Amino acid sequence: MKVLDLMGIPAPEKEKITALPNVQVESTDYLAQHGLADITVIFGWNKQAAALLPENTSVRFVQSFSAGVDYFPLTTLQSKNILLANTSGIHAQPIAESVLAYILAFARGVAASAQRTPADFWASDDLRASVFTLPGKTALIYGTGHIGRAIAEVLAQQGMTVNGISHHGEPVAPFATVGRDSDSLALAKAADVIVNIMPLTAETHHFFNDAFFNDLTGAPLFINVGRGPSVDTKALVAALHNGQLGGAALDVFEQEPLPADSPLWQAPHLLMTPHISGAFAGIYAAAADILYHNLVQFVQDGTLAENQVDLQQGY
Amino acid sequence: MKVLDLMGIPAPEKEKITALPNVQVESTDYLAQHGLADITVIFGWNKQAAALLPENTSVRFVQSFSAGVDYFPLTTLQSKNILLANTSGIHAQPIAESVLAYILAFARGVAASAQRTPADFWASDDLRASVFTLPGKTALIYGTGHIGRAIAEVLAQQGMTVNGISHHGEPVAPFATVGRDSDSLALAKAADVIVNIMPLTAETHHFFNDAFFNDLTGAPLFINVGRGPSVDTKALVAALHNGQLGGAALDVFEQEPLPADSPLWQAPHLLMTPHISGAFAGIYAAAADILYHNLVQFVQDGTLAENQVDLQQGY
Repeated sequence: MKVLDLMGIPAPEKEKITALPNVQVESTDYLAQHGLADITVIFGWNKQAAALLPENTSVRFVQSFSAGVDYFPLTTLQSKNILLANTSGIHAQPIAESVLAYILAFARGVAASAQRTPADFWASDDLRASVFTLPGKTALIYGTGHIGRAIAEVLAQQGMTVNGISHHGEPVAPFATVGRDSDSLALAKAADVIVNIMPLTAETHHFFNDAFFNDLTGAPLFINVGRGPSVDTKALVAALHNGQLGGAALDVFEQEPLPADSPLWQAPHLLMTPHISGAFAGIYAAAADILYHNLVQFVQDGTLAENQVDLQQGY
Repeated sequence: MKVLDLMGIPAPEKEKITALPNVQVESTDYLAQHGLADITVIFGWNKQAAALLPENTSVRFVQSFSAGVDYFPLTTLQSKNILLANTSGIHAQPIAESVLAYILAFARGVAASAQRTPADFWASDDLRASVFTLPGKTALIYGTGHIGRAIAEVLAQQGMTVNGISHHGEPVAPFATVGRDSDSLALAKAADVIVNIMPLTAETHHFFNDAFFNDLTGAPLFINVGRGPSVDTKALVAALHNGQLGGAALDVFEQEPLPADSPLWQAPHLLMTPHISGAFAGIYAAAADILYHNLVQFVQDGTLAENQVDLQQGY
């Protein structure tokens, strides 16, 4: 059984995987020479794999390197009965730390100080009056899955009250309150920090738009560590310029790579990172470990051990 | 019993205080009209209060708004048996959060991303490889007093191992290890993050000098939230340029305000804030809360609940 490795499985994990009965690992060279012929499992994804999949009959399981799988041809995978697994879980800790990093950069005046010039650096009365501490502040997290919960845990640990929004609206620890979409406005108005970690679906596309930002009253911080297209970039830029938002941090963007002429570059009170909130030294090993566990099960009975994506739902 | 409020107690705290049996709050208008006549407690301090105190016989307790009380007439207070309390303690939480903010700004690539231009923003392979998470990392805090302990608690909560250095070297929770000055080198070499929160004395002046930085082997982060002159600025700048330090964050400086021609402005991997790590928006409420707790006790038995200054020692 051939496993096509498009990501570069680290040596220790590769050794475990090739020790499985009848399993061979092929590199991107194989893809260049033979396409997807005789490939049963793909680890990672690229344009060439996407182009070849519709005509291929051997692929039975794709292990993504990401938590979100919106960029996969879900309908094709479903019609061909190909299993898809994500790496949901390994990004939770780094993303939660990144969210805390963004919040604290604003709360403790680090972001504002970094933008000052030698001439105005010490004129800090405005900073002194605006810096704050986290206990007693309220966060609202859109998405109460495991990454949302990991973020909630880190923020609750800092003394924040953390509410959530989900489809089902069912109580989930450690959220103080979980509302449905219909509770969004009331909870958003009460929030000092709003975090998006929803998957990208037709319903979440441009969920954060002019109407959303215009309804806010407390000039909260807005953080997007979910998917770029969940935010209407124009609306966000306007909300930063007109003060509907006190600040924003974006790790994901409607268009990636972020274009050099994006209006985001001129927006005030904005922190940006280049889609790295889920990254950490050790991420390849962690993803390959999920692949390994799934392969063990897949070799045995053709099912997956963990992180299987519901192709109908898209996550 | 009249409490003279020279600071402006915020409304919620004022409500709690006036609900105490037989307690009235008077404003600075009272001072202008009646002086200190019939005043039992003073919150804050000013020149008029200082001038009137020697002839006054009713004041029994002064609650300062500051941690340091060197500007009070300690001898007069002592001879008149007037109790004095400071606000020591309210800066621990904001300073601890600031330390976490600096560490996470480096760990999660926020500081490095903010320095990128539109043209090189998305070239993030180096960032992806360098960002890290906090669990398993080691911090060394110079100073194990109450602010040092608050920093240690916040970092330990993030999964870091936190060691400390103090004069006595005695074990203090939540430090994993507390060493004396003689253990400094060994513990510093093992640290991913080094934090200074020592008071400034003859012994701590330029404690962090060329010799200190040159001995480091793991390119740690260095954070100063203590006193500026504890660091030899030239040595720090050299350590940043030559890579002995992986990065640094300074809230205090040898010369304050920080001069526009300081070599720090040209140093790489450096975050600076203008002596604001202890500031926070609720500082008036926090100080009034100490006053409230002291009043509760004072009304009951004439003693103070917290933060009483030893008038002989002066702190």
